[in-house]
Amino acid sequence: MSGNTFGKSFTVTTFGESHGIALGCIVDGCPPGIELCEADLQHDLDLRKPGTSKFTTQRREPDQVKILSGVFEGKTTGTPIGMIIENTDQRSKDYSNIADTFRPAHADYAYTHKYGFRDYRGGGRSSARETAMRVAAGAVAKKFLLAKGIEVRGYLSQLGPIKIDNENFDWNEVRNNPFFCPDSTKVPEMETYMEALRKECNSVGAKITVTATGLNPGLGEPIFDRLDAEIAHALMSINAVKGVEIGDGFDCVAQKGTEHRDEMSPEGFLANHSGGIVGGISTGQDIIAHIALKPTSSMAIPGRSINSAGEAIEVVTKGRHDPCVGIRATPIAEAMLAIVLMDHYLRNRGQNADVVCTTPIINGQVD
Amino acid sequence: MSGNTFGKSFTVTTFGESHGIALGCIVDGCPPGIELCEADLQHDLDLRKPGTSKFTTQRREPDQVKILSGVFEGKTTGTPIGMIIENTDQRSKDYSNIADTFRPAHADYAYTHKYGFRDYRGGGRSSARETAMRVAAGAVAKKFLLAKGIEVRGYLSQLGPIKIDNENFDWNEVRNNPFFCPDSTKVPEMETYMEALRKECNSVGAKITVTATGLNPGLGEPIFDRLDAEIAHALMSINAVKGVEIGDGFDCVAQKGTEHRDEMSPEGFLANHSGGIVGGISTGQDIIAHIALKPTSSMAIPGRSINSAGEAIEVVTKGRHDPCVGIRATPIAEAMLAIVLMDHYLRNRGQNADVVCTTPIINGQVD
Amino acid sequence: MSGNTFGKSFTVTTFGESHGIALGCIVDGCPPGIELCEADLQHDLDLRKPGTSKFTTQRREPDQVKILSGVFEGKTTGTPIGMIIENTDQRSKDYSNIADTFRPAHADYAYTHKYGFRDYRGGGRSSARETAMRVAAGAVAKKFLLAKGIEVRGYLSQLGPIKIDNENFDWNEVRNNPFFCPDSTKVPEMETYMEALRKECNSVGAKITVTATGLNPGLGEPIFDRLDAEIAHALMSINAVKGVEIGDGFDCVAQKGTEHRDEMSPEGFLANHSGGIVGGISTGQDIIAHIALKPTSSMAIPGRSINSAGEAIEVVTKGRHDPCVGIRATPIAEAMLAIVLMDHYLRNRGQNADVVCTTPIINGQVD
Amino acid sequence: MSGNTFGKSFTVTTFGESHGIALGCIVDGCPPGIELCEADLQHDLDLRKPGTSKFTTQRREPDQVKILSGVFEGKTTGTPIGMIIENTDQRSKDYSNIADTFRPAHADYAYTHKYGFRDYRGGGRSSARETAMRVAAGAVAKKFLLAKGIEVRGYLSQLGPIKIDNENFDWNEVRNNPFFCPDSTKVPEMETYMEALRKECNSVGAKITVTATGLNPGLGEPIFDRLDAEIAHALMSINAVKGVEIGDGFDCVAQKGTEHRDEMSPEGFLANHSGGIVGGISTGQDIIAHIALKPTSSMAIPGRSINSAGEAIEVVTKGRHDPCVGIRATPIAEAMLAIVLMDHYLRNRGQNADVVCTTPIINGQVD
Repeated sequence: MSGNTFGKSFTVTTFGESHGIALGCIVDGCPPGIELCEADLQHDLDLRKPGTSKFTTQRREPDQVKILSGVFEGKTTGTPIGMIIENTDQRSKDYSNIADTFRPAHADYAYTHKYGFRDYRGGGRSSARETAMRVAAGAVAKKFLLAKGIEVRGYLSQLGPIKIDNENFDWNEVRNNPFFCPDSTKVPEMETYMEALRKECNSVGAKITVTATGLNPGLGEPIFDRLDAEIAHALMSINAVKGVEIGDGFDCVAQKGTEHRDEMSPEGFLANHSGGIVGGISTGQDIIAHIALKPTSSMAIPGRSINSAGEAIEVVTKGRHDPCVGIRATPIAEAMLAIVLMDHYLRNRGQNADVVCTTPIINGQVD
Repeated sequence: MSGNTFGKSFTVTTFGESHGIALGCIVDGCPPGIELCEADLQHDLDLRKPGTSKFTTQRREPDQVKILSGVFEGKTTGTPIGMIIENTDQRSKDYSNIADTFRPAHADYAYTHKYGFRDYRGGGRSSARETAMRVAAGAVAKKFLLAKGIEVRGYLSQLGPIKIDNENFDWNEVRNNPFFCPDSTKVPEMETYMEALRKECNSVGAKITVTATGLNPGLGEPIFDRLDAEIAHALMSINAVKGVEIGDGFDCVAQKGTEHRDEMSPEGFLANHSGGIVGGISTGQDIIAHIALKPTSSMAIPGRSINSAGEAIEVVTKGRHDPCVGIRATPIAEAMLAIVLMDHYLRNRGQNADVVCTTPIINGQVD
Repeated sequence: MSGNTFGKSFTVTTFGESHGIALGCIVDGCPPGIELCEADLQHDLDLRKPGTSKFTTQRREPDQVKILSGVFEGKTTGTPIGMIIENTDQRSKDYSNIADTFRPAHADYAYTHKYGFRDYRGGGRSSARETAMRVAAGAVAKKFLLAKGIEVRGYLSQLGPIKIDNENFDWNEVRNNPFFCPDSTKVPEMETYMEALRKECNSVGAKITVTATGLNPGLGEPIFDRLDAEIAHALMSINAVKGVEIGDGFDCVAQKGTEHRDEMSPEGFLANHSGGIVGGISTGQDIIAHIALKPTSSMAIPGRSINSAGEAIEVVTKGRHDPCVGIRATPIAEAMLAIVLMDHYLRNRGQNADVVCTTPIINGQVD
Repeated sequence: MSGNTFGKSFTVTTFGESHGIALGCIVDGCPPGIELCEADLQHDLDLRKPGTSKFTTQRREPDQVKILSGVFEGKTTGTPIGMIIENTDQRSKDYSNIADTFRPAHADYAYTHKYGFRDYRGGGRSSARETAMRVAAGAVAKKFLLAKGIEVRGYLSQLGPIKIDNENFDWNEVRNNPFFCPDSTKVPEMETYMEALRKECNSVGAKITVTATGLNPGLGEPIFDRLDAEIAHALMSINAVKGVEIGDGFDCVAQKGTEHRDEMSPEGFLANHSGGIVGGISTGQDIIAHIALKPTSSMAIPGRSINSAGEAIEVVTKGRHDPCVGIRATPIAEAMLAIVLMDHYLRNRGQNADVVCTTPIINGQVD
């Protein structure tokens, strides 16, 4: 009801605030017998963590994850996996001056009306810092899926005005630059753009694309829990996301049926306009989804707002912020897609469908 | 788990196939004491029903809804509202010739891999006919919300290449033409376009916009059940939808922070780029969402495909189809938005928060 | 939230009031390919239906069930199964005189405080008539389980003061008398007792035992969704039930560990005190549960109560009532146990784990 | 699906094994603005914790709880409350010798068949140690309820053969002895009994009674989520519980209607056979529930069993065990009852129904 849990068979429940003691999550429903250790999760967490380049927030958080349960002798047990990340760089003094002000386009005003008051330390629960736990949980899902031949990957497909096209697309480049950009020729342009943006104290939006390869047809549920509907839910739940597309997305509006429909042949589909999902169920084509992220609302350019008494004020958000939240969003989007796919995989097959037990069954009761 | 239920506090569960005996749904969690009758639902059902103009499928279905429970002496009782619509125009012979073929861009192939076989009569459960029950359930939500001062409305914002702009926008025109088009000056252009499309036996996509006015700030849940995430889920679950935007949506990608952020004043917000939702929670601005609908896959132009043995075939989909499914989608999108808003309203307030009981409480037990 | 749905993987949602137009339910999550027809359900409904002997209510209801969806060509499709039973013998005039009075030990007073008013026609939604749909849904589960070698059966183990012992126990007798009594030698005693009870216009309690044979070890979930906890939930949700025991139940209180523990041998368990569940998970022994049903509250002996203004009144409940609701409860208890077991079976294995698809997978996309 | 979460509006999700790094839980759905600190939880944890008397296990665990999120400036924020308890006394060597053996009446055998292997350290997830987190979560609920005038309390009503009667009943005595016994005159008898039991290395069952006073009528949901059904679920989910009764429970079987029905008068109910719940909904009478706990299965008297190869063996369970698990079960039963009541309270009223926001609403958008 309070919305801190995602998934039905494979569920992720998170807790924690930006400047609290720790973030944590419970990953439930993971099948037993999967090899899992903290390093598996840390890899993705390191991709998301702040302070890795000059284009992200300078807050220093190692985001060191600790597994507290659910793993025994290096393998999952089938019981819930508890994890925490301690917050180390809290500096909440940065925020005390804004306790009574509402920053434009932040959750401050809405939270205050929902809860009657708010945790003003760095946005509290509304901070994107919460997504660290999603990345840790998503890493469990990515590892599970990979063992089934399903690979989830993402990349930055547009940074402000700079679009990525197919010409120089190279998956191997995505991890080679701070932008998750698959086209190495665009990286210098992005660097220049971001430098200028920082100087004008402004922020900018971005577009991320996430994909999954290797799915069989038949994953997803018709009607309300269509695979695309759940992906839309998962991706729109990421901070700053304002739009989700599956396959051709909004380009469909002006397409004709002959143009859009993916014809089939015994050798495979002849196109992939659908983004791998038809009728809410996977077709076996690659899953393709795009998301739009709005420009960060925290910036040092003054904006008109109100305070908690309803009076007009001017707000300048100081402190350490990402000028483009989209830059660090690729691992988060991968995590959420992986969580949806693993959830649907297990909804189809059950948590324990693959369990092998060598202990014999004794036949009921001796008379 | 099987995805036929939507909502947490206010839930809608549907059943029924395109050519089965009846469609039905259970609306659960509606507060007691709301005036409700079949005519309230029929109004919206008549807007969605097929055969009302030459631009939609010619299947004749009166879509007459019957309330079976949950209403007593003209008011809801707080118990589940069961409803059915009988199917009258089934003509399933139209479909028997395609029992072993997969129509390109239909759910046929995916369903077969999920379930091992399929109900080939008009798409069975994958048919958009299922959305009739969503419209009936949504009408309950719309009535409830309206009593709280919240109005949900939608319109066609683009038909293929024809875009609606703000110049001649008039809410009163939406119900005056078969397209749900708010600009009367565009209607003749749409008619001409659709006539040509029908002659070439093709189909086309569309864009629908849905809005809600009158919400207070504070509706929605942070993290996974953000109001925008649930709206994205609800709208993407509608047949043929491939994209969802909240507020400025994909335009955010190239926006700067100063451009996107909605500044505030004591008199109100100075803009609405956010679409009325920040941090997943309503701000009190109008809720604005856009969806992209793909062109209908059923068409009389032959397409390459395979049959159930995996052999190459050519498919022509005969029968009665909507050349643009977007045309009838406006009431469905309104229904889904209303269901999400009512659900979140009750998640905040509870089903029985407004109950007034005139019977005195007797104080526990007499010793 | 409103509690009209039971189950997680295999779910049953019911609607309908005692004197409304119809009762109905949606059974969701049933795997595809299961043979199912109305006669399968009618068999169990006929066991529960009123008016079959002089020891139950004389209301005449054929309880004829109609399947509206989810079955195609004689098999389940994997999509939701909608069902209805029309109410035929409504005679709601019987009840109008009690619209403003609260019958002692009925739900009237509690419903009024929850909803602000009540449907006074025969108890409305609080009537045990609702359980007809549980029996129909349970029949689906019983059929599924039987195909897996799991048999769910129940019997009357005590009627008021008359207890069933093991001496003359015969499963074959259960369906041979109106009491579901497994000991034919006790039947005359029960008949005499019930005749006397009817003459004094009183009612009496009963105890029902339900069992399941053929389960493998490993069914159930630890912690909150233990198999025994879900069985307790399911059985306590039946009208008039005030107690649930698993295995030795309350006899455990005075037992020592050496007496209670079921020792194991390669040939099987050496006893079954646990009722087939340890740590919340099935052991492979028979599942055994007992329930206590209170005496019917409706009776023609006057009782002290209050009216809706809070004034003292005297109430006599006329009309057609079961003098022992336990008599018809055996099929309901079987249904609820079957629903729990099928739900847990599918939580382990998934809805589609057994699907066989003969259509080849075409390999993704042709470049 | 995996059953580690309880509740719908107010939810508790736990993780952790007996000999893992830590136990933890997430309490979600708690309304904002409730005063809460670790001492509030520690009080109840200290009542449950092991090693407080010679009649419980001698494992030394301080059970020190730490709140990681959801509380800001001494009050709940409405966001999830994360908590952990570190395990300090793990000594897992005690258990390594039983890695390949199944202890009679333990979850070992069932877990192995469910998951394919098991965490043999002290029962892993199946240990009653998990209930520590339930007690912490329940303390949140108890505090919330108390502020609404609802008090949840429990006591030991039977220890093996020693029954508590009403004669010397005194709530104030419950916390004055290690048994949670409300009759001080029975305590010496219990001490003697437990001493003798320990000498013979055996164990024994117990009965616990939990009550709630101060509820208004109208709490609970009809049909499947009846208040009594959810209480039965919650209480049966506690380790070792084999039976649950509401009000008169199994005594109802032999009662007549005139004897059982609780008559009403303007001054109150004239009796409380129902245990405060009719038709699944609270009546305003005291809630009364009883549970039966089986004797501990761990004991030093050899028992027949099998090993993981299915061979016959003899098992002696050494180590530190409670000879009567019922002794420490009172705070756990109180916690579970409180969680159910708070959940239903919020299902009726919503999480934020009581929020007061002093910040004015700015009216939508300035044109």
